[in-house]
Amino acid sequence: MDTTIFTGFELAARIKQGVKARVAALGRRPRCTLLLDGSNAGAAAYAQRLVASADDVGIEMVPAEYAANAEAVRTQLQAEGDAMMALYPIPSFIGRDEVARLIGPERDVDGLHPLNAGGVLLGERNARPPATARACVLILEELLGSLKGREIAVVGASAVVGRPLALMLLDREATVTVCHAATADLASHTREAEVVISATGVAGLIRAGHITEGSILLDVGIVRTEKGLVGDVDLESVSGRASLVTHVPDGVGPVTTACLLENIVSAAEARAIS
Amino acid sequence: MDTTIFTGFELAARIKQGVKARVAALGRRPRCTLLLDGSNAGAAAYAQRLVASADDVGIEMVPAEYAANAEAVRTQLQAEGDAMMALYPIPSFIGRDEVARLIGPERDVDGLHPLNAGGVLLGERNARPPATARACVLILEELLGSLKGREIAVVGASAVVGRPLALMLLDREATVTVCHAATADLASHTREAEVVISATGVAGLIRAGHITEGSILLDVGIVRTEKGLVGDVDLESVSGRASLVTHVPDGVGPVTTACLLENIVSAAEARAIS
Repeated sequence: MDTTIFTGFELAARIKQGVKARVAALGRRPRCTLLLDGSNAGAAAYAQRLVASADDVGIEMVPAEYAANAEAVRTQLQAEGDAMMALYPIPSFIGRDEVARLIGPERDVDGLHPLNAGGVLLGERNARPPATARACVLILEELLGSLKGREIAVVGASAVVGRPLALMLLDREATVTVCHAATADLASHTREAEVVISATGVAGLIRAGHITEGSILLDVGIVRTEKGLVGDVDLESVSGRASLVTHVPDGVGPVTTACLLENIVSAAEARAIS
Repeated sequence: MDTTIFTGFELAARIKQGVKARVAALGRRPRCTLLLDGSNAGAAAYAQRLVASADDVGIEMVPAEYAANAEAVRTQLQAEGDAMMALYPIPSFIGRDEVARLIGPERDVDGLHPLNAGGVLLGERNARPPATARACVLILEELLGSLKGREIAVVGASAVVGRPLALMLLDREATVTVCHAATADLASHTREAEVVISATGVAGLIRAGHITEGSILLDVGIVRTEKGLVGDVDLESVSGRASLVTHVPDGVGPVTTACLLENIVSAAEARAIS
């Protein structure tokens, strides 16, 4: 069987067209502050891509270095604007929970504020979903149409990807199994699934023995190794067995960025109404 | 194999002892308003049990009939007190979301306010969990000790039981599959699980062919039939195959009530601090 390598550029472009139209309708440039630790190569590269993508659709993304102490970062987090992102790694002197609370539900575009996370748990139609989880759902709908009754294994149970993603797949009536580091026999679950979405950051975790012939593999993991960026899926191993694998980093990545821009314009629109 | 029928009275009594001690430490009677449609036999019976259980631990539970129009119900929902419950069925002229929002996160003891639901999604330690989901977790911990690596199938993906329960089981590092009406082959999942928790309200859904020898079955369903109250599990069919089945209604039920009382005293404590 031929294994297709899926890149997300085309889907991302379509999502961004939609964002662009909404920005035009809004009549002003939405503004998002992007706090980061620029000494972290991954964060700096990601920020650069975000600024460029945002500019494409008329969103002003303003990168800024984290300040040197907790009080100053608290002030930064409460700065004016439609949206606020605090990129990982966040400074050790401030907690994740406090960051989310200071950003507040209105300006949170990562789905990390409890009020936004609650919307996802309760299946609210206007919930603001974490971008990576939303990207996975959109890619699957692009590939499969309806997800109703599909058998999907999610590997990785983080609060930012695996957990909200499982709920969003349930919203679409998929049958969902969530596996993680404590799962006794990962392959026994992933082999039964039509779709495996892996978001662990364990390079090469998913191999041929983990999957069934013809399955679809969404690879959310990105690990920097000596061989460059690699994902959770061992591409060589699954080639010829999976029907499709998403490219790392250009599969789920560009779609995630587009979904983040969607969240930013949603934040700006909500602000215009209130 | 002998099949044990689990009743929740002993575990519930222990939880209630804890609640009683917390009420004593608080130094005043927590007060919870209980809105209900008394013409509904199920709601009326449930309310009566709640009032009696609350009284046992020093909590004042005040039942009141839903008012006849939306504006009056809105006023009721905002009444003074530590906690507020709006029992099903709620009046058709007011939406579930609005009910949760008017109750507010502080007085919500059902985990239905988005802020409380968000705490569950994010795995926050102080999250106020829906009582039924919490009861299932406590029963399993009572029976199995650690849930780490356990294979658990949750049948039913409601916002009040199945979805938060799946997340709370993930908090404890269980491997969780969530099935529901759109699941293509329910038995293929439930047969692989050590524990099946069914919360569908479909009488007799889970039969011998759905389970593996020695499995533990938690039955959250309660349906009134001509034969009396029955659950999701077909008891006759699974007898001799399951190692344990919870009694309906006296298995998960009493533990749920005790967990609800825990949430009420938590609400009162949080109010004392703020």
